Amino acid sequence: MLGAGNLGHHFQKLFHEAENVDLVQWYNRDLNAIEFAEKDTKITNILTQLEDADLYVMAVSDNSIAKVSSQMNRQRLVVHCAGGVDMKILESGGRKGVFYPLQTFTKSHELSFKDLPICIEAEDEKDKVTLFNLAKELGALPYEMNSSQRGVLHLSAVFINNFGNHLFNIGNKIAKSNNIPFEILKPIILETAKKAIAHGPEKSQTGPAIRNDENTIKKHLDLLEKTQYKELYLTLTASIKQNNE
Amino acid sequence: MLGAGNLGHHFQKLFHEAENVDLVQWYNRDLNAIEFAEKDTKITNILTQLEDADLYVMAVSDNSIAKVSSQMNRQRLVVHCAGGVDMKILESGGRKGVFYPLQTFTKSHELSFKDLPICIEAEDEKDKVTLFNLAKELGALPYEMNSSQRGVLHLSAVFINNFGNHLFNIGNKIAKSNNIPFEILKPIILETAKKAIAHGPEKSQTGPAIRNDENTIKKHLDLLEKTQYKELYLTLTASIKQNNE
Repeated sequence: MLGAGNLGHHFQKLFHEAENVDLVQWYNRDLNAIEFAEKDTKITNILTQLEDADLYVMAVSDNSIAKVSSQMNRQRLVVHCAGGVDMKILESGGRKGVFYPLQTFTKSHELSFKDLPICIEAEDEKDKVTLFNLAKELGALPYEMNSSQRGVLHLSAVFINNFGNHLFNIGNKIAKSNNIPFEILKPIILETAKKAIAHGPEKSQTGPAIRNDENTIKKHLDLLEKTQYKELYLTLTASIKQNNE
Repeated sequence: MLGAGNLGHHFQKLFHEAENVDLVQWYNRDLNAIEFAEKDTKITNILTQLEDADLYVMAVSDNSIAKVSSQMNRQRLVVHCAGGVDMKILESGGRKGVFYPLQTFTKSHELSFKDLPICIEAEDEKDKVTLFNLAKELGALPYEMNSSQRGVLHLSAVFINNFGNHLFNIGNKIAKSNNIPFEILKPIILETAKKAIAHGPEKSQTGPAIRNDENTIKKHLDLLEKTQYKELYLTLTASIKQNNE
């Protein structure tokens, strides 16, 4: 396995714990970041000293995939783990694949792979089977998906997670600047997700925008002092109304 | 209790089930909508025929609060349940209060009031105690909050729930138009909420905007065909970058 970012840290733990997975070696440019794992697995920061393995999992940043894979020069199966990157970008000279778990990862935040969707792509049918089996071994749900579908899914995840979290952040900032503790907002954050999951987000939409409650919208715009927040409010309100037309 | 919208339905069930709450009567303009509850509680659609009670809970739409309360003409405690409406708008001629549960309600979606924040306001100290006790009786967490703070909290909830859900909706629409089932998106929706709750949304921000990944941002804008979605993407990306400056 290569890379020690958020995903790399999760993979190291999972691969190490999985009964039928043998994590042969962990590569990272900065050896200090992975020294803690030396008791469980071989570590290295030298690409030319990679051990032989059935599968090379590249959990490196999108921009490093081409370069790092070109230096690997292996005739084995090499996969990257990026949502928005084409499989073809791999330059290992050998068999290519993708192993993309659709989730948001943070090193410090423990996370189960149970029933987590993993998008799989490979040129070779046998390699697909290998990647499907690896996903199942982690408790995850493998889905076959080509690079173009995966790119769309990554975009979709940006709307859901990156943008969704940003709105949670702004909601919290607005509350905080009025001395309202984050604690109060936790139940509505959780319920927003749970309701969307149970009934679908289309049926879960409520609020002033969808019921054309111009009184409340005006009140809210008056309350918002920052241009940044006003702009977001207006753009999102217009978008909800447009969906509803 | 007055009103049979999303909140009214939840309240009827809760009040009926709570050991130390006696739901005397349920009023709704449209009697058909509440007939199902007649086995448990008296119902009426005539405001002048309201029974005597210690507390009148108005779970009616924001725009009806003033009008309905003015027709009640009661010398008892009357509360509304709206986030963005000042307590003073009540025109019952008697004691006023607010009982605002911070949550998103849908009739068909069961929901526990356990640990749910309820914002309480009242002119009279004794009425505050009554409302605090009612909240606790439902298993909820009462917070005292004046109308101006509550207005801010309501705005904050719009960002979190209404706007957050809208982004889940767009993420789903993008996936759907590429034949990707909603099922795949459920784990990331739930984890978005859970991570924000565990670490705070500020520390949970990931994605191309916050790491200034212009390559991915360009790819995503090329993928988005609808102007509506492009505009949202640009506005939200700019806002994430601005927060990060």
